[in-house]
Amino acid sequence: MPPALAVSTVIFGIRPNAQGRAELWLPLVRRIRQPFAGHWALPGGPVGARESLGAAGARTLAETTGLRPSYLEQLYTFGDPDRSPTQRLVTIGYFALVTEQQVGATVEDDNVAWFSVNDRELNQLAFDHREIIDYALWRLRNKVEYGQIAHRLLGERFTLAQLRSVYEALLGKELDPANFRRQLKATDSIAATDEYLAGGQHRPPRLYRYAGTGHDPLEVDTTL
Amino acid sequence: MPPALAVSTVIFGIRPNAQGRAELWLPLVRRIRQPFAGHWALPGGPVGARESLGAAGARTLAETTGLRPSYLEQLYTFGDPDRSPTQRLVTIGYFALVTEQQVGATVEDDNVAWFSVNDRELNQLAFDHREIIDYALWRLRNKVEYGQIAHRLLGERFTLAQLRSVYEALLGKELDPANFRRQLKATDSIAATDEYLAGGQHRPPRLYRYAGTGHDPLEVDTTL
Repeated sequence: MPPALAVSTVIFGIRPNAQGRAELWLPLVRRIRQPFAGHWALPGGPVGARESLGAAGARTLAETTGLRPSYLEQLYTFGDPDRSPTQRLVTIGYFALVTEQQVGATVEDDNVAWFSVNDRELNQLAFDHREIIDYALWRLRNKVEYGQIAHRLLGERFTLAQLRSVYEALLGKELDPANFRRQLKATDSIAATDEYLAGGQHRPPRLYRYAGTGHDPLEVDTTL
Repeated sequence: MPPALAVSTVIFGIRPNAQGRAELWLPLVRRIRQPFAGHWALPGGPVGARESLGAAGARTLAETTGLRPSYLEQLYTFGDPDRSPTQRLVTIGYFALVTEQQVGATVEDDNVAWFSVNDRELNQLAFDHREIIDYALWRLRNKVEYGQIAHRLLGERFTLAQLRSVYEALLGKELDPANFRRQLKATDSIAATDEYLAGGQHRPPRLYRYAGTGHDPLEVDTTL
């Protein structure tokens, strides 16, 4: 009997905390079955017999959370023989970033909720889902370029201050604005637009846009 | 019935071609069973019932080719419903780089051989193994830093000319030596040593070493 095969999806979005600072959050789903009944877990489920892996990721995410991000990226496949106490279970991790607007549009209830990546509840997740989240965070911190993160978490247009606030949330530390601006301008993944943030400031900040193309050729387009 | 689960491993190494230029090669194994009996395929095989995925990658690689690289990196999981004509088969791709010495130490026969990535035989591989190789090449070109590639393909010490020759093989084009040297020095992934290439030249070239640490936290250490 081959191992059972499932998909699990880590979706990060930005929410402001009580002090108004950007914080990384992710949606979790409460398990209604054993093993780990009652525990929070990543959205996911079994791969259908005639379904591609990416399609299974998109379908189970929509079924459990209502979320339909425009793309999913395969993260890593987790297959430790002991990761489930009841049967051999291999799960293919998927990963996506959604904008603040998409985070706000989610309906939360007793069985679906967003959690801060700093929430202690994350220490009691089902299976090895904490490890999957930690790996997704590592990948986000190390392998995604500035512009792509900005584009995906902040949307089409963003200020440098908004982008710095996202990086501070991601790295868990404050960044020097001048250094951050210098580093950013050394990359070619963002470009200045001729637009400025609306809001009536005396000197409204300039808006930037994503200028790169760095898409993985195997990224799953969920809009098909 | 869940899909059958296998591992497939892409190993790249350097071999000089007839003109003495570095070329990327990889080992393939001839299939002795249906489907695709007689076709060349990536080394691999089914995941054992009590075996981690990385251990299955290392074991099947050693069994089919004798190769024991010091690490394997998980590449991507391929699970298209139609990738095998006989049953649903999901394969977890692994990836490694080996040094020229390791390439030279392989015993080749009718059923195990190294092929250039430019060999036309690669168009007739079993399953979607050509696609897996193309993805591994893409990952190598885009996601691995200079120093790591040098370290893994060339060994502990290497000259800038050797490293440029590897990059030319990887990118399939000649690189300007001065530009390459400048780009390389802008990264901090290699460092000069106080040693020089042996061989009695009038001005022997300086040897460099890998100076980075950029290992993926989930890289499989196969030396355990």
